[in-house]
Amino acid sequence: MITGKNFLGNKRSAKGDKTYNTFNPALGLKNDWIFYEATQEELDEAAELALEAFITYKNISSERRAGFLRVIADEIEALGDLLIETYMLETALPEGRAKGERGRTVGQLRSFADALDDGSWVDASIDTAQPDRSPLPKSDIRKMLIPLGPIAVFGSSNFPLAYSTAGGDTASALAAGCPVIVKSHPMHAGTGELVATAIINAARKTAMPNGVFSNLNSSGIEVGQALVKHPSIKAVGFTGSIKGGTALYKLASERKEPIPVFAEMGSINPVVILPSALEEKGAFWANQYAGSIMLGAGQFCTNPGLILGLKGSHLDTFKTNLGKDIAAMDPSCMLHPTIYDNYERGKDQAITQGGTTKLNITSSKASPYFAEQLVLSTSGLEFLKNPKFHQEVFGPFSIVVECENVEEMHEILTTLEGQLTGTVLGNKEEISKYSKVVDALTQRVGRIIFNGVPTGVEVCPSMVHGGPFPASTDSRFTAVGTNSIKRWVRPVSYQNWPKDLLPDALKDDNPLKILRLVNGSYSDSKL
Amino acid sequence: MITGKNFLGNKRSAKGDKTYNTFNPALGLKNDWIFYEATQEELDEAAELALEAFITYKNISSERRAGFLRVIADEIEALGDLLIETYMLETALPEGRAKGERGRTVGQLRSFADALDDGSWVDASIDTAQPDRSPLPKSDIRKMLIPLGPIAVFGSSNFPLAYSTAGGDTASALAAGCPVIVKSHPMHAGTGELVATAIINAARKTAMPNGVFSNLNSSGIEVGQALVKHPSIKAVGFTGSIKGGTALYKLASERKEPIPVFAEMGSINPVVILPSALEEKGAFWANQYAGSIMLGAGQFCTNPGLILGLKGSHLDTFKTNLGKDIAAMDPSCMLHPTIYDNYERGKDQAITQGGTTKLNITSSKASPYFAEQLVLSTSGLEFLKNPKFHQEVFGPFSIVVECENVEEMHEILTTLEGQLTGTVLGNKEEISKYSKVVDALTQRVGRIIFNGVPTGVEVCPSMVHGGPFPASTDSRFTAVGTNSIKRWVRPVSYQNWPKDLLPDALKDDNPLKILRLVNGSYSDSKL
Repeated sequence: MITGKNFLGNKRSAKGDKTYNTFNPALGLKNDWIFYEATQEELDEAAELALEAFITYKNISSERRAGFLRVIADEIEALGDLLIETYMLETALPEGRAKGERGRTVGQLRSFADALDDGSWVDASIDTAQPDRSPLPKSDIRKMLIPLGPIAVFGSSNFPLAYSTAGGDTASALAAGCPVIVKSHPMHAGTGELVATAIINAARKTAMPNGVFSNLNSSGIEVGQALVKHPSIKAVGFTGSIKGGTALYKLASERKEPIPVFAEMGSINPVVILPSALEEKGAFWANQYAGSIMLGAGQFCTNPGLILGLKGSHLDTFKTNLGKDIAAMDPSCMLHPTIYDNYERGKDQAITQGGTTKLNITSSKASPYFAEQLVLSTSGLEFLKNPKFHQEVFGPFSIVVECENVEEMHEILTTLEGQLTGTVLGNKEEISKYSKVVDALTQRVGRIIFNGVPTGVEVCPSMVHGGPFPASTDSRFTAVGTNSIKRWVRPVSYQNWPKDLLPDALKDDNPLKILRLVNGSYSDSKL
Repeated sequence: MITGKNFLGNKRSAKGDKTYNTFNPALGLKNDWIFYEATQEELDEAAELALEAFITYKNISSERRAGFLRVIADEIEALGDLLIETYMLETALPEGRAKGERGRTVGQLRSFADALDDGSWVDASIDTAQPDRSPLPKSDIRKMLIPLGPIAVFGSSNFPLAYSTAGGDTASALAAGCPVIVKSHPMHAGTGELVATAIINAARKTAMPNGVFSNLNSSGIEVGQALVKHPSIKAVGFTGSIKGGTALYKLASERKEPIPVFAEMGSINPVVILPSALEEKGAFWANQYAGSIMLGAGQFCTNPGLILGLKGSHLDTFKTNLGKDIAAMDPSCMLHPTIYDNYERGKDQAITQGGTTKLNITSSKASPYFAEQLVLSTSGLEFLKNPKFHQEVFGPFSIVVECENVEEMHEILTTLEGQLTGTVLGNKEEISKYSKVVDALTQRVGRIIFNGVPTGVEVCPSMVHGGPFPASTDSRFTAVGTNSIKRWVRPVSYQNWPKDLLPDALKDDNPLKILRLVNGSYSDSKL
């Protein structure tokens, strides 16, 4: 069922002569399937089909688009064990994780279908005419969100399902009415092809236009670059490294017609541990954080890579506990040799900066590509003077920073780059007492957590997964939750438009029964 | 009362030795006031003050921010005739226009104050905890919009009040909780200083932090560039040329921390005139469009610069009427010699392309800097093969394009760049009959108008003033209407946050009585 070919709309295609394999990091062996790198000609065909499909797809009813998303979810589930096995062969992630991620992926697709059924996401707004207004009459003006056009989606290495082929970017773009071209992630091209097949089957079953979805294989950067530069592409979704996301963002801004790029990139997810948390629950938090740092071999963008505490004996105890707890945990296999190599390099760089102490000593490695955890400790002064410590080390790695006092802790937070999350451990009184610190942290993050761990991103309307640069390239949007649809749409006003020819969302009798802003007041009634 | 100095927060400053004057185009003479170009040192001081002010200002209640905006409006009105006279001396625009624009400006400020009073603009969203959920408990997650930080605003040449110092960008940014640094437009620096004084007075009277507003004079491009590159600036609002807006957009994207730029730029605002409109109301529309083209010496970004019709005797009659009607109108003075020179150059370039016919012959000019109107006619084929015809000529200029058939009309629309507006003249039946043309036009614009003229931008929630590039640099936002506040804010999630320490917008008992999305349903009730 895995052919290694690209999908140009509904058609499988393998015109290129460049091929590659995926890799099984648990066995240290290439997988058997051979993938055909997409050619420029194939990319052009996919883009042309997407633009053609857009003309039809944008006008397909929300109800039918919701049906399409639900059938994609069903088709992914119908792939059964084959998908789970392929996922595991290409990632070395355990079965539970594979199944959990599949559940999250189909859950996301269905939540966008529900949002389409509800319909209020189009932000309909109506200002009725005032023909007698003086000095000038007022026209009838109505507004709603419409899709941007074909979207390029770059799958992530660390979420082969939930942030890849049919992940949040694809689901939200298809929900918005935008065709999608996925640049398949080379580390899990087989998983990607299976999911692409599910999407294509769903498109056929629900009679969506050919070209509403394409899947391009690529092991290098050229296909992705060509995709972002293609004039038919109107926006880009990316999940991955700061280097990769920033490069695509710059490429998109240099186009003749610049386009928006939403790249969700790196983060060290600072944690501020306040005195009461150290005194009263230090051992508990050490244990929780050992687990959070180790989760999924540390391969989460919300992995806690920086823990700030105030110097003292309670922090010393916390460090000892954290070192002990994390040393007791079993390493697990990383996704790919490249990721493993980058992790090793990142750890080496951190250690060789000097001014650090290792909190845990690990045994010799269990197996190649298993990530040995490392937690370092350093002083606030060392951290402040060395920007290298501010960089994400993707894997089970963290630094505990011993701050001299609250002022130093505040200074560190104000010098940090943008982050996906920030966490405060303590009690309520301390949030007020350390308000300057909490405020500085809030300014740096997309999500602020009290007494918890940053790993685990709930899919719900109130979730923000994004944040000030470089957590994402546009902090005004989120990559997770139904609001992520807002990345792929723009408002359009209809002025003095014949009422029976308006889109349903803007008609007087509100046939979609959606919430609308009518002459300044929210209502789901007829006019 | 005009000192020519910059405002660095509440302080007037003139450290530079570079000075300039504004110009009275009606008299062809420099105005007396001398303006001091801001130095890098002054800019740095304004930026530092803005960042410092942000720490306080973002936490000031909506009620107090609304009060600040209302007092700004009052203070602008209190400037009385001095403001109107200065405006006229710096623009040669008539008194009625000056007063109308002042009314629009204070109206905008008060409409943002009303939006703050209502409070629902923060898009509050609450998903309550589910501690018993399996396999994992769900945390309480709540989201709202928070301000980005200090904003740089570039005033426009053609709206010295409504899109400049206290115009829509400044009003929306201050409403959002962002301090503002205005790069004053050199053509109306005196008007700008008066309005800046009104803002500073209002900031003092309502006890806003020093630095919430600064006004920098500049006659060149250096101060603006330095402002966009300044690390304290977190977003940019610009109204002006494609060249200027695109340059700032690129500069912002090349920063170490890229920031969003919302630039509202050029547009030729295509008008599609369908057969029934030519047959039944051709003379009426010719007269209406002559007026729309001439309005404000054509110095509106919504000026209709392109009229598409189907070849035939009715279109011939329309062209004759349009030529006659527009020739009968009196030219008026342009804003500045530079704008006049650009207009003359733009007309010359259009004429020398060949393949065009003049629809009107104008008399010798009434006075220097008066804009002589020009309407050309060309064929669809000529228009398609010459991209020069697609460029905006800022002034009372338009081209009527004679399309061979509907297919050619459609092709022209698909080759156009993004536009602020598109207009369809015809009857209801034609919207359906020519749906392909109407659909192609809708895809290119931010606002689509039926049987009207594009000039005149209503300030209301349903207005979109923006559009696909190059109408604006980000079609997902509008520059006019209360939704323009969304340019300067980002969402932040609070996870498991102590309920009594949440921002008011997210508290259980909904003290602000705003509309919120609570567990997927909209409600203004308590939890």
